[in-house]
Amino acid sequence: MIKQITGGICAAKGYRAAGIHCGVHKNRSKSDLGIIVSDVPATAAAVYTTNKVKAGPIYVTRENLTSGTAQAVIVNSGNANACAPQAVENAHRMAESLANELNISPQEVAVASTGVIGQELNIRAIEEGVPEAVKALSYDGSDGIAQAILTTDLRKKEIAVSCEIGGKTVTIGGIAKGSGMIHPNMGTMLAFLTSDCAITIEPLQEILGDAVKRTFNRVSIDGDTSTNDTCLLLANGLAENPSITGPGEAYDTFVAALLEVMTYLAREIARDGEGAKHLITCTVRNGADEEVCEKMAKSVIASSLVKTAICGGDANWGRIICAMGYAGVAFDPSKVDIRLRSAAGEVLVCVNGTGEAFDEALAAIILAEEEITIDADLKDGITSVTAWGCDLTKEYVAINGDYRT
Amino acid sequence: MIKQITGGICAAKGYRAAGIHCGVHKNRSKSDLGIIVSDVPATAAAVYTTNKVKAGPIYVTRENLTSGTAQAVIVNSGNANACAPQAVENAHRMAESLANELNISPQEVAVASTGVIGQELNIRAIEEGVPEAVKALSYDGSDGIAQAILTTDLRKKEIAVSCEIGGKTVTIGGIAKGSGMIHPNMGTMLAFLTSDCAITIEPLQEILGDAVKRTFNRVSIDGDTSTNDTCLLLANGLAENPSITGPGEAYDTFVAALLEVMTYLAREIARDGEGAKHLITCTVRNGADEEVCEKMAKSVIASSLVKTAICGGDANWGRIICAMGYAGVAFDPSKVDIRLRSAAGEVLVCVNGTGEAFDEALAAIILAEEEITIDADLKDGITSVTAWGCDLTKEYVAINGDYRT
Repeated sequence: MIKQITGGICAAKGYRAAGIHCGVHKNRSKSDLGIIVSDVPATAAAVYTTNKVKAGPIYVTRENLTSGTAQAVIVNSGNANACAPQAVENAHRMAESLANELNISPQEVAVASTGVIGQELNIRAIEEGVPEAVKALSYDGSDGIAQAILTTDLRKKEIAVSCEIGGKTVTIGGIAKGSGMIHPNMGTMLAFLTSDCAITIEPLQEILGDAVKRTFNRVSIDGDTSTNDTCLLLANGLAENPSITGPGEAYDTFVAALLEVMTYLAREIARDGEGAKHLITCTVRNGADEEVCEKMAKSVIASSLVKTAICGGDANWGRIICAMGYAGVAFDPSKVDIRLRSAAGEVLVCVNGTGEAFDEALAAIILAEEEITIDADLKDGITSVTAWGCDLTKEYVAINGDYRT
Repeated sequence: MIKQITGGICAAKGYRAAGIHCGVHKNRSKSDLGIIVSDVPATAAAVYTTNKVKAGPIYVTRENLTSGTAQAVIVNSGNANACAPQAVENAHRMAESLANELNISPQEVAVASTGVIGQELNIRAIEEGVPEAVKALSYDGSDGIAQAILTTDLRKKEIAVSCEIGGKTVTIGGIAKGSGMIHPNMGTMLAFLTSDCAITIEPLQEILGDAVKRTFNRVSIDGDTSTNDTCLLLANGLAENPSITGPGEAYDTFVAALLEVMTYLAREIARDGEGAKHLITCTVRNGADEEVCEKMAKSVIASSLVKTAICGGDANWGRIICAMGYAGVAFDPSKVDIRLRSAAGEVLVCVNGTGEAFDEALAAIILAEEEITIDADLKDGITSVTAWGCDLTKEYVAINGDYRT
């Protein structure tokens, strides 16, 4: 049984974390440096952006994780350290400064950055901040780092769950940042996941890669895939369960618990998209296979016209079926039913690909809720896929266009 | 020598056109029905949307054009006749009503619609309007139909050019509507092209398909590929040039003239995108091949973050190189130079993939112009591709989100 618990990234045994302001951000009230430290070296898996333009920390983390282990994470917000002078060198210096302070090898440190692309990182501020951050480390420090990694996010994204594996309680915690430059097709934005599960690197990397495909890769805020996306999962074994080395019951339980953590974070990233007023969940059901359902669900949540219609509270299902139509997969439009649903109720707006008379007043009440579900039934199979996005608002344009004025 | 002339869709010999209000639109001052008639049957080629969800008129026009000829076009705005009851039947009735009035076969009529998806077409209003539209036909009627096909467009899009082929003056004219639900990957929005060139169907269809790839398929307003996109080209032979039947000098001249017409219309569609304040031209140059350059140029002009940055007058080249990076093609980011250019000057903002110090005040002046060029040099080959888009503004959100309130 998987249950949600408190403690976030520090919920699992043996993890301390901290977040401080070191000076990468000019705003002194915004924390901008976060660290996570495991008491013992942990098995470490990661998924990175597929963008051909990669930030400095991606290269360093990828290199350091070739050993399959890591003991600490250092992350800054306020500067992406991408397309910037000394990007890789400065990412190495981030790892070294934390390693020195902790008396571990720099190869045991994962590095991540998020913020503006193209400007040189203030590495001195980070190096000077590391000792203070290490002093602030706490087994209760999830809130600090969950705040420090945010940029234009309005809310921290933090969760933990526990489950039982081999008679032991195993915990998984996670934090994430999202908000802008968020689009499927890779690891994701930044997400850090910690567990006390005992598990070897091969199943850990396999589980993480698969879970990313089913969670973060099904989120889109604005169609822009960032240069910095990193999803990192540490598992330090302190739960003392019999180590998971491959498929089986323990493997499946760990997958289910991890999916719960990552699905929660994916939804929260969508909900807190830049300027968003609505979380949009699109489920494409009864499709021929996963690819068909996934491409359509992602096409719907990424459509500017669907996103503006939801922003305007309009049950414009024509834009939904149109977005399904250009998803690039085969289906029979004349079989499609579309429902719009929220806590306030449900309306059937399209039957067999053609408009169905519906109660406009009820539709308006349904679309006034914060969470909106678009349910498209293909009546062509048994596969379902869900993707998450948010509406496109004037505030999104203001956040990304007016920030200089 | 290709020269621009007046007359739009009626500039070529033997074409009459008209646009009237028939009642599909509730607003009586908005014309909503347009017709084009050639004095003689014309060779007719067309390219249609790749959306799996297709409007009724797409099926009818495709069927009617299997003969390779057409003599008339009927088009309405205000209703897309897509995912609507009786969609195909009503599209047939549009063709029949015009054919009856002209005493030609319904198979000689091409049909198109644009507007809201999912509502039943007011076919009676169209049928009752056709006699009036036929009476209004004029060899000077381009303005009428160019206005009638618009929806949220602010400006009509109309052009004509003439060239010399086989000692005869050959003319090509065109009109288009764009504005929203505009994204590469198919024919395009609606575009009607007329010529008096004598040419057989095989080269005409080949030339049109290739020209669409190089013009309309390189435009994006909002990433949404419509259900109704149609680009139709009629060539009635009244110029009396030796008929073009395949490659050669005459073929090349016709291609050059047609590209001038279609490039103009593509740029005007981008410029008049919903809510747009800037026309964005992105040229990716010195790439390895056309696919690399095209995918990157389209990725840049479709990026919400690039579009909002241009809206805000910010030289945020990090978003540009990021969009190049997720275009899904191989390149070396460390060789990329980026320049921003307009009538007010040019700034070099990125050299070899890294930020270059530039004059921020000059950049602001450059970005205040209406037409902005993003020039990305890959230094990896000799191919260049240009794509066109527009900025993403609060007005886009208002047009597509607030229209119900």
